[in-house]
Amino acid sequence: MTNRTEPEQVAGNGLLHRRLFLQGGAAAVGAAGLELLTARPAAAAEPPDVPQWMKAPGAGMSGHGERSRHESHVQRTVGSQPGTTGSGGSRTPLEHLEGIITPSALHFERHHAGVPDIDPDRHRLMIHGLVERPLIFDVESLSRYPLVSRIQFLECSGNSGANNAPEPPQQSAGQLHGLVSCSNWTGVPLSILLDDAGVRPEARWLAAEGADAAAMTRSVPLEKAMDDAMIALYQNGERLRPENGYPMRLFLPGWEGNASVKWLRRLKVLAEPIMAKDETSKYTDLLPDGAAMMFTFPMGVKSVITSPSGNATMRGPGLYQVSGIAWSGSGRIRRVEVSADGGRSWAEAALDEPALPKAVARFRAAWRWDGGPAVLQSRAVDETGAVQPTRQALLESRGPQFRYHYHAIQSWRVSPEGEVRNVYA
Amino acid sequence: MTNRTEPEQVAGNGLLHRRLFLQGGAAAVGAAGLELLTARPAAAAEPPDVPQWMKAPGAGMSGHGERSRHESHVQRTVGSQPGTTGSGGSRTPLEHLEGIITPSALHFERHHAGVPDIDPDRHRLMIHGLVERPLIFDVESLSRYPLVSRIQFLECSGNSGANNAPEPPQQSAGQLHGLVSCSNWTGVPLSILLDDAGVRPEARWLAAEGADAAAMTRSVPLEKAMDDAMIALYQNGERLRPENGYPMRLFLPGWEGNASVKWLRRLKVLAEPIMAKDETSKYTDLLPDGAAMMFTFPMGVKSVITSPSGNATMRGPGLYQVSGIAWSGSGRIRRVEVSADGGRSWAEAALDEPALPKAVARFRAAWRWDGGPAVLQSRAVDETGAVQPTRQALLESRGPQFRYHYHAIQSWRVSPEGEVRNVYA
Repeated sequence: MTNRTEPEQVAGNGLLHRRLFLQGGAAAVGAAGLELLTARPAAAAEPPDVPQWMKAPGAGMSGHGERSRHESHVQRTVGSQPGTTGSGGSRTPLEHLEGIITPSALHFERHHAGVPDIDPDRHRLMIHGLVERPLIFDVESLSRYPLVSRIQFLECSGNSGANNAPEPPQQSAGQLHGLVSCSNWTGVPLSILLDDAGVRPEARWLAAEGADAAAMTRSVPLEKAMDDAMIALYQNGERLRPENGYPMRLFLPGWEGNASVKWLRRLKVLAEPIMAKDETSKYTDLLPDGAAMMFTFPMGVKSVITSPSGNATMRGPGLYQVSGIAWSGSGRIRRVEVSADGGRSWAEAALDEPALPKAVARFRAAWRWDGGPAVLQSRAVDETGAVQPTRQALLESRGPQFRYHYHAIQSWRVSPEGEVRNVYA
Repeated sequence: MTNRTEPEQVAGNGLLHRRLFLQGGAAAVGAAGLELLTARPAAAAEPPDVPQWMKAPGAGMSGHGERSRHESHVQRTVGSQPGTTGSGGSRTPLEHLEGIITPSALHFERHHAGVPDIDPDRHRLMIHGLVERPLIFDVESLSRYPLVSRIQFLECSGNSGANNAPEPPQQSAGQLHGLVSCSNWTGVPLSILLDDAGVRPEARWLAAEGADAAAMTRSVPLEKAMDDAMIALYQNGERLRPENGYPMRLFLPGWEGNASVKWLRRLKVLAEPIMAKDETSKYTDLLPDGAAMMFTFPMGVKSVITSPSGNATMRGPGLYQVSGIAWSGSGRIRRVEVSADGGRSWAEAALDEPALPKAVARFRAAWRWDGGPAVLQSRAVDETGAVQPTRQALLESRGPQFRYHYHAIQSWRVSPEGEVRNVYA
């Protein structure tokens, strides 16, 4: 409209004030110039033609629904270890998703010997070791304990590790960073079960073992078990999916996903960590001096722009919404900043409400692309004040053999042709 | 354990203090007597036998996952109008779910001419009528506007109407009250689009029309459209499901579901409501004096206990978790109280964090059932101070021909045999 003013530019190369995305911001519309954000819709005096699907009744109701056949291209990216079918992972297609909940069918996977086909009536969880009373639970007895429900992320510590490579892999946001998902998890606080078993004074660790063919085993500090750990039974309202540990898994909020052992069958209370194969040859990092760094459980503060992102093509200069996700293993996301000039200047992004502790937060910024070269970045800050590092700073602090817990700023270069590519900037 | 004390009883017939379910409550375990809450697990010195599914690698990763075959009994309850396949509804199986998010495959349905099979590339939304510039949008042009994401419930105004019958129907919680679901919705604030079109001063209403064979049409006050209404594009992270309006629907937080028109194709800005068939013969209520009550949009404050609930059987006296959901079209749930003696005394329940505005909240209470007769009830209070009414009070205030917006307290009677039944108490 002619009576509108331009949105205020708050950082270099076209980044605009976040107020457009804040609650009530849309109401302050007179001065916002919002129409510039849109692909101009065609004007017409008459309603659109009546489409064929309005001319006959549609499909009936169903007991369990399916997504539209027009969305079947939205898939996890699967990768298996050579010679196996069930050892590997699949990645959430972040660039196709919005909001903060990951559909359970698209939650990332990381398995060490495939997905076991467990009969829930025959599954048992044992708590033993340094306890007064060893206990065995089935699904039904667990379900009678007090439950708690929270929205929290889960991230594999190997997520984003491809950016350790000397040359930036030309992949999508999901292929690079899709070993993170966020769900509404419901389960029994582990502290209640441990108290019921009676933990002995000398206990400091638990060994958690899964009922898969790898008997995936990790050591978990007792302190975390007594804090916010749960035995999860439900994911996004329904029972856990098989890929996520059906019928029960350990869930350690904010910690590397591998420690949240799936198909959980055993918790052995110990004085020392068990030093399982899954935490010695894997899930540890060699330091420059040759020592191994172990038990780096909390996931760092992190963010990634999912739109626009790797391998996308922009449709010409104009105003765009820059959107992505941010998370931290240490608590709530306090702030996300966005840059369009490779980190020289930053604009604060808007966060959708609510920004929950140890959950994915959704951020949004408005960007006017002038058609010139640009490098888009996002930088998250959590409630402890931790700031997401640059790639250079992260690699310098870790040395060449580091592999896990990559959480550096992602850079997407936009070419004058509108092609979006992964770059190290 | 012998050194534990009994949990404190805070209301009649065995209701205990909610502190067992509060954050940190599990840590204050010494005095909680929590073991009484559980089915006693069997003690054993050795781990459980190694099950067959640990003896060979499991299934590989997949692009789009499925739930366990052992969960296929969890289904929506489908009901069609006689002589049709697509006119009717299906109800969320509330008694099988936990947390606050409803899996999209189990979100309730209510259709008037079935689910249209819409090609998203050919779908259009028109905004016209009392506007400066009629506009037509496709999915792609809409997606360039600022988006917003929120967790909010949707409830059909006909939900729970079966309890208007003279005799209480013997149905499950989902069959009685399952026309409510809760999702993470993402879309474009409608106020932005209306501003872009330029609403004329005399405008007061919108007519919203769906692209189904019924051309489902409802009148929506302009004030709501400019407040928190959105054109929803995503549900629980992915694109809307076909049953929920793929590729776009109107979403009016807290209002009767029917007004959140699915498969939205047209918004006509008007000075008066359009008085569509869908809001005259249906979705209005006859008052005792013969006048029709129209446009009763906000959903009342409401709750229902989902565990234990209708048609369940208790496994003998002992301590139980009483759990359910509460919601209000007017904002946040402030408090839920639970009674085990048919409303003579009440204990405050614990609420899972976060309790979000116009979203489902999950409540929990601890109850020691002594094996005698009991009537379980829940009563929600929202942040405006509105209190969920008794059935008797609701029916007295409305007269005999009222049909929609039933939101009275649900009573479940527990017999000495442990059978749970719907009663009017």
